[in-house]
Amino acid sequence: MKVLDCTLRDGGYYTNWDFDGELVQKYFSSFEKLPVDYLEIGYRSLPEKEYRGRFYYLPNFVIDEITQLSKNKLLAIMLNEKSVQPKNLDKILDGLAPVISLIRLAVDPKNFDSALLLGEAIRKRGFDVAFNLMYMSKYANDESFLGKLSSLNGLASYVNMVDSYGGMVPEQVKILIHNVKSYCREAIGFHPHNNMELAFANSLAAIDAGCEIVDTTVMGMGRGAGNLRTELLLTYMASKNKLELDFNVLASLIEAWMPLYRKYEWGTNLPYMFSGGNSLPQKDVMEWVSQRFYSYNCIIQALHNQKSGEADN
Amino acid sequence: MKVLDCTLRDGGYYTNWDFDGELVQKYFSSFEKLPVDYLEIGYRSLPEKEYRGRFYYLPNFVIDEITQLSKNKLLAIMLNEKSVQPKNLDKILDGLAPVISLIRLAVDPKNFDSALLLGEAIRKRGFDVAFNLMYMSKYANDESFLGKLSSLNGLASYVNMVDSYGGMVPEQVKILIHNVKSYCREAIGFHPHNNMELAFANSLAAIDAGCEIVDTTVMGMGRGAGNLRTELLLTYMASKNKLELDFNVLASLIEAWMPLYRKYEWGTNLPYMFSGGNSLPQKDVMEWVSQRFYSYNCIIQALHNQKSGEADN
Repeated sequence: MKVLDCTLRDGGYYTNWDFDGELVQKYFSSFEKLPVDYLEIGYRSLPEKEYRGRFYYLPNFVIDEITQLSKNKLLAIMLNEKSVQPKNLDKILDGLAPVISLIRLAVDPKNFDSALLLGEAIRKRGFDVAFNLMYMSKYANDESFLGKLSSLNGLASYVNMVDSYGGMVPEQVKILIHNVKSYCREAIGFHPHNNMELAFANSLAAIDAGCEIVDTTVMGMGRGAGNLRTELLLTYMASKNKLELDFNVLASLIEAWMPLYRKYEWGTNLPYMFSGGNSLPQKDVMEWVSQRFYSYNCIIQALHNQKSGEADN
Repeated sequence: MKVLDCTLRDGGYYTNWDFDGELVQKYFSSFEKLPVDYLEIGYRSLPEKEYRGRFYYLPNFVIDEITQLSKNKLLAIMLNEKSVQPKNLDKILDGLAPVISLIRLAVDPKNFDSALLLGEAIRKRGFDVAFNLMYMSKYANDESFLGKLSSLNGLASYVNMVDSYGGMVPEQVKILIHNVKSYCREAIGFHPHNNMELAFANSLAAIDAGCEIVDTTVMGMGRGAGNLRTELLLTYMASKNKLELDFNVLASLIEAWMPLYRKYEWGTNLPYMFSGGNSLPQKDVMEWVSQRFYSYNCIIQALHNQKSGEADN
């Protein structure tokens, strides 16, 4: 079972992809000594109008700095499939080989066909490719979509199921992984969200069903209600004697991360639970919650309207 | 499926069983409109040397106040079995009938025989009795203990499994409930702890296995890493159309509870995860974490020593 920590990429939704230089050093020096396999260090993106920090763009000088800091981990980056055209691929991948071994694509299943072409083009350039398939709770029994996954055989290093709404329960996750495995021979992965405090339980269910890689973040730092906490998965695995864990290193990393947590206070709360339970997108919820201006009442009322298809006030 | 909210009793470990009068009013007026069955309002105890607040002793004038505030909920209180002798029972139960319908006993399985006598004596006085059996992860396959549970048939209204260490996983919970049900005909309950962020997943597994009542607290407020959040279970049940939920009332209660959360910051963290994963008592961890003086490093080192039976420095 492999672990991919994507704190800098997914936690970047809170910090706008800027992280303090010392903290970044602490991050990489800690993971040198922790039993995870991959570090996903950010997005690669073409220039956008709004300001975004360095872990959204990962210019080559940042890649160079990171390769100085990280010697024994496999490195990954993520591309948003919908914003990348094959014609821009050389520009986007420039300078990533050979230090970045894995390119992960965030894919809306609706765009699977174009994602497949993009993945093939990336694979041809010598990178391993992973597909992070979003909204998979909607497709768990959709044979017409699941059938397409056989086209990933021989192409994808990992095919990751994303519980985008954070609303899945362990039983659903098991069925999803089982169904996907009947079409796809490649390693299946799981990217949980913690809206219903089920990120860890769903990951255990996924592993149980044959999932081979799980995404985690430090203290669960990630978009919306956040992710499976790296420290929780590692502590659990260590308690089962499945890996060696240096708690000094882990504890020290968590304590270094604490000021960020105090500032942004990610994690679940009533509006996120509601959006998870009702399969609503968390982008709006995150904006409303983060502003700390609207009451939970207001937010849930707005979500109720979304659910029933009414416009917000 | 029934829900028992025990915030005032279990959350009292943080506030020393004192709660602001207005907040208590808010608590009861909110639950008048929320779909839970029981409110456990505190402990009943004989005088102790150290100071404890009113929800630890529940003097009769407090019981009277609460009966004014709570009209449509069943009320419960808890007794620590080990500190109650049958000869003191009349004193301890004085003034509770008829407004308190359920007396719950916190029982160490080692003291099951004396707990049984105490339960019978309470039942004779006209109360419903529940047994909250602690440390049940240790007894899930202990036939010699489980066999004793048949003596609760015809006596206990609820037989509740407590995951004292917060270290159980859903699969274990299912097996435990299944095994207990082969001896015990009465309604089985579950009291989860959230050390591994599995309180909700374990509760779902328990319900799935035939458990009929679950303990929850507002925002998960409870000893150590805390409990299953009342708002999470209710939001989930509402999303499955299993109950009607007024989110205005629920959101307003959570917001009223927020200052307490800001002050005490209960919930899990690395030391609690470690104690959960390794089945260590959380009393010490809570003391060390709450002081906010020791680093996580220090605490985990001390827990490591406990685990290997060494004395702390």
